[in-house]
Amino acid sequence: MENNRGILIVVSGPAGSGKGTVLNAVFEKSDNFTYSVSATTREPRPGEKDGVHYHFITKEHFEELIANDTVVEHTFYCGNYYGTLRTVIEKDLCNGKNVILEIEVDGAMQIKNKFPEALLILVVPPNYEVLEKRLRGRGTNTEEDIANRLERSKEELKFFNEYDYLLINEDIDEVSDNIISIIKTQKLSTKYNKDFYNKFFNI
Amino acid sequence: MENNRGILIVVSGPAGSGKGTVLNAVFEKSDNFTYSVSATTREPRPGEKDGVHYHFITKEHFEELIANDTVVEHTFYCGNYYGTLRTVIEKDLCNGKNVILEIEVDGAMQIKNKFPEALLILVVPPNYEVLEKRLRGRGTNTEEDIANRLERSKEELKFFNEYDYLLINEDIDEVSDNIISIIKTQKLSTKYNKDFYNKFFNI
Repeated sequence: MENNRGILIVVSGPAGSGKGTVLNAVFEKSDNFTYSVSATTREPRPGEKDGVHYHFITKEHFEELIANDTVVEHTFYCGNYYGTLRTVIEKDLCNGKNVILEIEVDGAMQIKNKFPEALLILVVPPNYEVLEKRLRGRGTNTEEDIANRLERSKEELKFFNEYDYLLINEDIDEVSDNIISIIKTQKLSTKYNKDFYNKFFNI
Repeated sequence: MENNRGILIVVSGPAGSGKGTVLNAVFEKSDNFTYSVSATTREPRPGEKDGVHYHFITKEHFEELIANDTVVEHTFYCGNYYGTLRTVIEKDLCNGKNVILEIEVDGAMQIKNKFPEALLILVVPPNYEVLEKRLRGRGTNTEEDIANRLERSKEELKFFNEYDYLLINEDIDEVSDNIISIIKTQKLSTKYNKDFYNKFFNI
């Protein structure tokens, strides 16, 4: 891997983890990160711009991209595809940008398979009470809904071992600093400096 | 691995890398690190204290400790053994201290074999000129000596890929900060938080 290539970062986290707020803080603190814009087959909503909020493409086109391995992770939700295009992230990685994918566990596992060098970060709420409170939302859900959502979060968190880093979000500022440190130290790893020997000895 | 267990850190570097100065800065900046005191079979020099500068033991005892796998890395130099005792580092690791071993490439590879979770850090001089200048020392070496030492450094640095991190020492302050960050982020890795799920869900 060349030293100037960006790092692919997957960030997942259940409801109540605060990962969205954490990532906003990361973007505020550093210019070295970029979000990957997802592709989707759903219709744009008013105000949504192609290439900014999503890459809006047809279902046929999406399936064609899946078939030729251009879609590196995807999900099918309420009749539409959502996913990440290899072309989109490769361009940013080559330009030295660290690309953040904010995706769920299932997509994270797909990325891990295709990009073994990707860094997987799981952000979790400080404790169970916060998770439960957040899953209850604004009190509009039935107890059955809540139980289902809780069960799903439990199932997803069982995959925590598949992630490289576990960040317990007790403080937004601390967690966003940690994400920046993780990426910075990753750049010091020998796998990002494979050309060192030849450069040092001018071979 | 429990989260409160310390991390075993190997630091190597050729002449001119400044690794000694870097480690002094790490110890000044943080209380979370400790040096491992080596064992040796050579005689104490005036002023050297047993258990502080070295653990001074007999040759027979050292060989016995090698035989029962208590010596985790060692070298034989000018008629004496020098090495690291498992008992010494285990005690500090269990007490949550991050243990630094400042050893050469050969010992580092022995540690890597026995402690796959150890972090291996290689500190290198900013460039070839500094390495050569340092190997020339104070001008008391013959050209043949210098050529031999240079060749040895070249051979050793070929192992850089076996290390986890490569730190190019252009600035003591920066490199010592990097070592502290590497250890801090390592503690956030899922392998140091294997008990998370059960703790979170109170299982």
